[in-house]
Amino acid sequence: MSEFIPPGSLYHLLPSPFPMKRGGSLQGAHVAYETWGRLDADAGNAVLIVTGLSPNAHAAANAGNPETGWWEAMIGAGKPIDTDRWFVICVNSLGSCKGSTGPASIDTVTGALYRLDFPELSIEDIADAAADVVRALGIGQLACLIGNSMGGMTALALLLRHPGIARSHINISGSAQALPFSIAIRSLQREAIRLDPNWNGGHYDEQRYPESGMRMARKLGVITYRSALEWDGRFGRVRLDSDQTDEDPFGLEFQVESYLEGHARRFVRFFDPNCYLYLSRSMDWFDLAEYADGDVMAGLALITVERALAIGANTDILFPVQQQQQIADGLRAGGADAQFLGLDSPQGHDAFLVDFARFGPAIRGFLDLS
Amino acid sequence: MSEFIPPGSLYHLLPSPFPMKRGGSLQGAHVAYETWGRLDADAGNAVLIVTGLSPNAHAAANAGNPETGWWEAMIGAGKPIDTDRWFVICVNSLGSCKGSTGPASIDTVTGALYRLDFPELSIEDIADAAADVVRALGIGQLACLIGNSMGGMTALALLLRHPGIARSHINISGSAQALPFSIAIRSLQREAIRLDPNWNGGHYDEQRYPESGMRMARKLGVITYRSALEWDGRFGRVRLDSDQTDEDPFGLEFQVESYLEGHARRFVRFFDPNCYLYLSRSMDWFDLAEYADGDVMAGLALITVERALAIGANTDILFPVQQQQQIADGLRAGGADAQFLGLDSPQGHDAFLVDFARFGPAIRGFLDLS
Repeated sequence: MSEFIPPGSLYHLLPSPFPMKRGGSLQGAHVAYETWGRLDADAGNAVLIVTGLSPNAHAAANAGNPETGWWEAMIGAGKPIDTDRWFVICVNSLGSCKGSTGPASIDTVTGALYRLDFPELSIEDIADAAADVVRALGIGQLACLIGNSMGGMTALALLLRHPGIARSHINISGSAQALPFSIAIRSLQREAIRLDPNWNGGHYDEQRYPESGMRMARKLGVITYRSALEWDGRFGRVRLDSDQTDEDPFGLEFQVESYLEGHARRFVRFFDPNCYLYLSRSMDWFDLAEYADGDVMAGLALITVERALAIGANTDILFPVQQQQQIADGLRAGGADAQFLGLDSPQGHDAFLVDFARFGPAIRGFLDLS
Repeated sequence: MSEFIPPGSLYHLLPSPFPMKRGGSLQGAHVAYETWGRLDADAGNAVLIVTGLSPNAHAAANAGNPETGWWEAMIGAGKPIDTDRWFVICVNSLGSCKGSTGPASIDTVTGALYRLDFPELSIEDIADAAADVVRALGIGQLACLIGNSMGGMTALALLLRHPGIARSHINISGSAQALPFSIAIRSLQREAIRLDPNWNGGHYDEQRYPESGMRMARKLGVITYRSALEWDGRFGRVRLDSDQTDEDPFGLEFQVESYLEGHARRFVRFFDPNCYLYLSRSMDWFDLAEYADGDVMAGLALITVERALAIGANTDILFPVQQQQQIADGLRAGGADAQFLGLDSPQGHDAFLVDFARFGPAIRGFLDLS
């Protein structure tokens, strides 16, 4: 399934065995990553980005791959994450299908695809793998660690499990623990995939592929990634032209339905269903409170970082801004100079991917002082 | 599928043919309804309740059926809708499977189940059928028309198409037009049912039944009927006891997942899938703006009613309170003494079904002045 993997990725071989938090270990596993800018002689200008569930490491165009990346507007010369100053790294999450070892990879021990034999994946494993990339690049301390969405969880795990790994931290639309509304949504997405007969207990192939399950999961994702407010303005009750609809009495009729269909179509064959299940479940399990006798604030306060910014969109229903407020409060309790910023972006959880007018200056401003 | 229908319903035969707004007509169709209290000699004390998508007409215990109804706390002697004073009627929506004629009924012309041969159903048809019950009971003007959720749409259609049918109106968690977030959710629910191979273009039976599609649709419904806030307090991250979980690595683990599963199990065999599709789509189509050149406020202002209350929960993500605010503003523009009340109920769209401490006094207070 090499179509998942962007060209030009760099690969870092993880220590073998690479132990997994919930048991088991990986042999000969690797993570894909990309970089932008130049690392200073003292390795003091490194910025690491850890991502949401679906992105690859190709956050922006670079020498290895000139194609537009998923955070192109944010990373580059003169951009908010300014590559004239910063050496930027983006790591594809362990467990993903975008270059790093995951359920869609070949188990080097058996020679077969892992599928559901991949060990249980936790956010902490993703964090440990990313930390290993940082060390391998000779970076003692990151100038800044940036995590988006699921990456916000990964970043917190990284900071907690690798004290001193970053001087500063930007947590974007992240969360210190999964809460029941988001667990319910993800549980339903996984159920949609698992109910698809073509999922077949994880044993699908290109011919028999759980396409309808993945489509449902993606549509539900897109619904919860955006906001009602944005869609009111964007789609209203506009209907499709008659040549875009079909004879099916329950088929597509409104623009918003066609928008979801388009998103689903662009996703279903470009993300491995088993990897999706593993990454999705890792978020449900994530809970910093585990490190502090069930007290999430105390878990956050265990983290040592000099400065932090927890930022999100007020319209986010998946990782509501109260969770970013909590991150800022908890890190402050741990001694950080931490601020919270809730932005009036209409685009919900995904705002950081599109509302550069609001997120750009906030991130630039924080990094300028780093 | 008589298990859908509560015992003790009354039936009203609709005029035959009964014309449908979007074309076609019904022959020999009927609606189920129930009543509480006694109609005054001048028929001036009648209150009609039109419901959400899934409820039947059994809103509370009565002589015909002593079982607890779905709005038991609200209807009865001394309760907010006081049956010592009011003669209360609740109508099962046309198109439902709970006693009224719908896609799960036998077409009296062909002798076969309608299934997808049922004509396209609109909210307006549901409203017209309810209006016919009112007239048949000899009621010239309702003292109050109450609509919940989808019933809020039905009530607005009733008021607009049957001027003078009600002196006052309570619109609960309703909407004057479907907006894209709720359309997207409903579209996905319908897709889940239609994707289930057992749906089979509407030709299922008890043996081959679209159970997984209905389960997905219901779970997605329950997620959007409640609120993240409520679930944080109610479920948090509490896990199931080990004897409630199974060996499936992606099976139920958190209480919130089990809650959804329980809701789904209680629903899937008790609501007809084709009826669900028809009622769901009727909501997407509903738009009072159609009556006023695309201006929803002008559509509302066409309605004549003396007093109105539009009420909802601030945590509702499906029919957000801005839509109830809009209803109050629009009815006021049409000359009504209309107020809006956004309640701080944590339970989201479903709050009117559970938060009697807040909804009860508001409804009682309005009716006391009627």
